[in-house]
Amino acid sequence: MDKPAPADHEIHHLIARRWSPRAFDPAGGVGATEMMRLFEAARWAPSAFNAQPWAYVYGLAGTPAFAILLACLVPFNQSWAQRAGALVVACNRTLDDKGAPLTHGEHDLGLSVATLLLQAEAMGLAAHAMSGFDRAQAAGALAVPAGWQPMTAIAVGLPGDPALLDERQREREVGPRQARRPVTEFAFEGAWPAAD
Amino acid sequence: MDKPAPADHEIHHLIARRWSPRAFDPAGGVGATEMMRLFEAARWAPSAFNAQPWAYVYGLAGTPAFAILLACLVPFNQSWAQRAGALVVACNRTLDDKGAPLTHGEHDLGLSVATLLLQAEAMGLAAHAMSGFDRAQAAGALAVPAGWQPMTAIAVGLPGDPALLDERQREREVGPRQARRPVTEFAFEGAWPAAD
Repeated sequence: MDKPAPADHEIHHLIARRWSPRAFDPAGGVGATEMMRLFEAARWAPSAFNAQPWAYVYGLAGTPAFAILLACLVPFNQSWAQRAGALVVACNRTLDDKGAPLTHGEHDLGLSVATLLLQAEAMGLAAHAMSGFDRAQAAGALAVPAGWQPMTAIAVGLPGDPALLDERQREREVGPRQARRPVTEFAFEGAWPAAD
Repeated sequence: MDKPAPADHEIHHLIARRWSPRAFDPAGGVGATEMMRLFEAARWAPSAFNAQPWAYVYGLAGTPAFAILLACLVPFNQSWAQRAGALVVACNRTLDDKGAPLTHGEHDLGLSVATLLLQAEAMGLAAHAMSGFDRAQAAGALAVPAGWQPMTAIAVGLPGDPALLDERQREREVGPRQARRPVTEFAFEGAWPAAD
């Protein structure tokens, strides 16, 4: 369903229209072609020193991989993400080739994930990023190597009927967008304002 | 200048066209209206538990704030970013209200920064995110409070003439896009492939 951001300043429609739904069409509609386009978008995000410290593990609905990914989610997220067309776990690199910590790995994965989410919006897909999953379980189940860590799970698929959701989720689905702090509270000219 | 990503799979033009130029038009062209639109886009990024762990400090060209921000950049970045219409330092929250570490602060700032960069592309602005700045200097100069940290600097402005750049920068500006790993090297179905 459409619920564009109630923006105070004009922004691009892809950015305004993207949100994080929980209602997916269990008929699927996401295949290898769609996944490649999502990851291609993720590929062209910027990163510090072009390190590209991102990797994605995914499973399409109906495959064993999907079941393994679904089992990593917290129960609340499993309850709705089970109807997604695909599940993804996004991982960031934590150590460089010499074993030194990468300072921008998590941040730059975020750059890549946001690009993927906006590509999904451009394709008419619903996409929902989650922190609610068991990172240690995912690291083991997905064979994430040393020097990398699971950071974000993503459900993606065709938008579905909110009637499929339980009551609490349905209320959030059809209700207004989650509020955001206004720009004046997080963007400052010159310096951070002094605390009250 | 235009140098769209040589994508292997079809992606939205905003994502394909975004890159990180160093040539800015020293005539400026970025004012409060443009900055508010950029931050509005950043505002509507997703974040874990809607924590919105992002803040931005900015300065417009020709103001004391710009000079303070410019001085935080490493000399290589100062050499070209001095012609930007505005400089920004993006900060992520590191501790929650109870003083506990935020696990997704850096990642979620990355979601917000990528959204800002794509909004800049939509507005025909050049934007270049940098890790090359002195984070401690920025924290002091911008009065970043405890529980937050400077993470990413961003130069934004009107696209400029590559002839303004020094020879090395000009060659990179007019040369091909920096390469990215192909999707098959960072997106895996089911599990990470075993190391060779």
